[in-house]
Amino acid sequence: MLKYEEIAHNIERYIREHNLRQNDKLPSTEEMMNEYQVSKSTIVKALSYLQQKGMIYQLRGSGIFVRRTNRKGYINLFENQGFTSLFDYSNVSAKVLAIEELGANEEVAESLNIAVGEPVLYVKRLRYIEEQIFCVEESYFNKMTVPYVNKEIAEQSLYQYLTNVLKVKIGYSDKFLHVIKLSEQVAQLLELEKDDPALLTEEIFHKGNGEPFNFSKITYHYVNSQFYMASVEMK
Amino acid sequence: MLKYEEIAHNIERYIREHNLRQNDKLPSTEEMMNEYQVSKSTIVKALSYLQQKGMIYQLRGSGIFVRRTNRKGYINLFENQGFTSLFDYSNVSAKVLAIEELGANEEVAESLNIAVGEPVLYVKRLRYIEEQIFCVEESYFNKMTVPYVNKEIAEQSLYQYLTNVLKVKIGYSDKFLHVIKLSEQVAQLLELEKDDPALLTEEIFHKGNGEPFNFSKITYHYVNSQFYMASVEMK
Repeated sequence: MLKYEEIAHNIERYIREHNLRQNDKLPSTEEMMNEYQVSKSTIVKALSYLQQKGMIYQLRGSGIFVRRTNRKGYINLFENQGFTSLFDYSNVSAKVLAIEELGANEEVAESLNIAVGEPVLYVKRLRYIEEQIFCVEESYFNKMTVPYVNKEIAEQSLYQYLTNVLKVKIGYSDKFLHVIKLSEQVAQLLELEKDDPALLTEEIFHKGNGEPFNFSKITYHYVNSQFYMASVEMK
Repeated sequence: MLKYEEIAHNIERYIREHNLRQNDKLPSTEEMMNEYQVSKSTIVKALSYLQQKGMIYQLRGSGIFVRRTNRKGYINLFENQGFTSLFDYSNVSAKVLAIEELGANEEVAESLNIAVGEPVLYVKRLRYIEEQIFCVEESYFNKMTVPYVNKEIAEQSLYQYLTNVLKVKIGYSDKFLHVIKLSEQVAQLLELEKDDPALLTEEIFHKGNGEPFNFSKITYHYVNSQFYMASVEMK
């Protein structure tokens, strides 16, 4: 873990352990530099990350304040480390519907920046949170980066497997959101009706060097899911 | 505009003017410090902002690279300066459906952190992009911060009015996203059918000092809108 990431985690933990509320003031940048014995730009990076996540806001000239949403049960759209890491949920599970090796079709090939027909690993899962159906997820992995997955692995956290076992350095992801009417097939999996609403996200994960390695299409149960996003103004 | 914001805008302009593509390399942090004659932490803040916006990614030890999504026509969920400022759209318009002073109901009172019954300004608008119906927007403003709005103002950019005329210092916003079935009433405004899908966002805008001043409920046309969000991994 990089230094600023460690600092950010420490500050998050501090907020939780001290049960700080919205608008409570945090130590100053200088105090934190002293406390953690790091440079100013390390603190600045840590605070930027926390601000992006919606945990703090900075008021120039006044200080750094806690920003905690009152609403529970919302998935933070910024969170990108797999469902199993979500703060509020301890009971996340998956039912594996398919694992196969396929040749990339046009959509997958374009998203992963590979040729049509190149081998990809396809994993389809039904995800549950607190035993409620949460989403249907279809993932396509470039076989060069993810050569192997099995049912046992897919029933747990694929994110953990990628980072801890395969040591993939995940850089960033692009998320595209659409609202759609459910097809008969996906509606059945979600235990909803054909034409019911759904949020469909397409996400392309890139390694640290910019190379895409995972393309996921996730269809969320419209009753059992809701999302949160923090924004910061720039004048 | 703060210095780092100015630098961020300059870098964005540089990318656009030089028509840089995905994975093109930008000057180093040191080169930018020299070019703009600013401190390292100013550059770090500017780059953080651009990274959050999805315009660049940083590869430790290798440099700063352009990250530009291939897909056009997506609204960046991180953009928070009103529709009129959206990068890709030049033709944004509004039809004002209602402007009135109301007493805050429970939902509005709780979102704005005021007492039920306190006066709020209510503005309801139908928004168009390139003359296509885009969303129905209901905004509630704390009258203490926004004492007056009229039809002419509401037909233009309310965001511009708030920042340039009323000089409100907007700090940050919390966005809550839900997928719903349209009611008959809203469906008619969007020229869709009852029970058609929609994205409903509730957004609470806070001033720089943390005080909420605007609560907005926006229902998006599910065919005419799609959204994008950049995420950055943290290990």
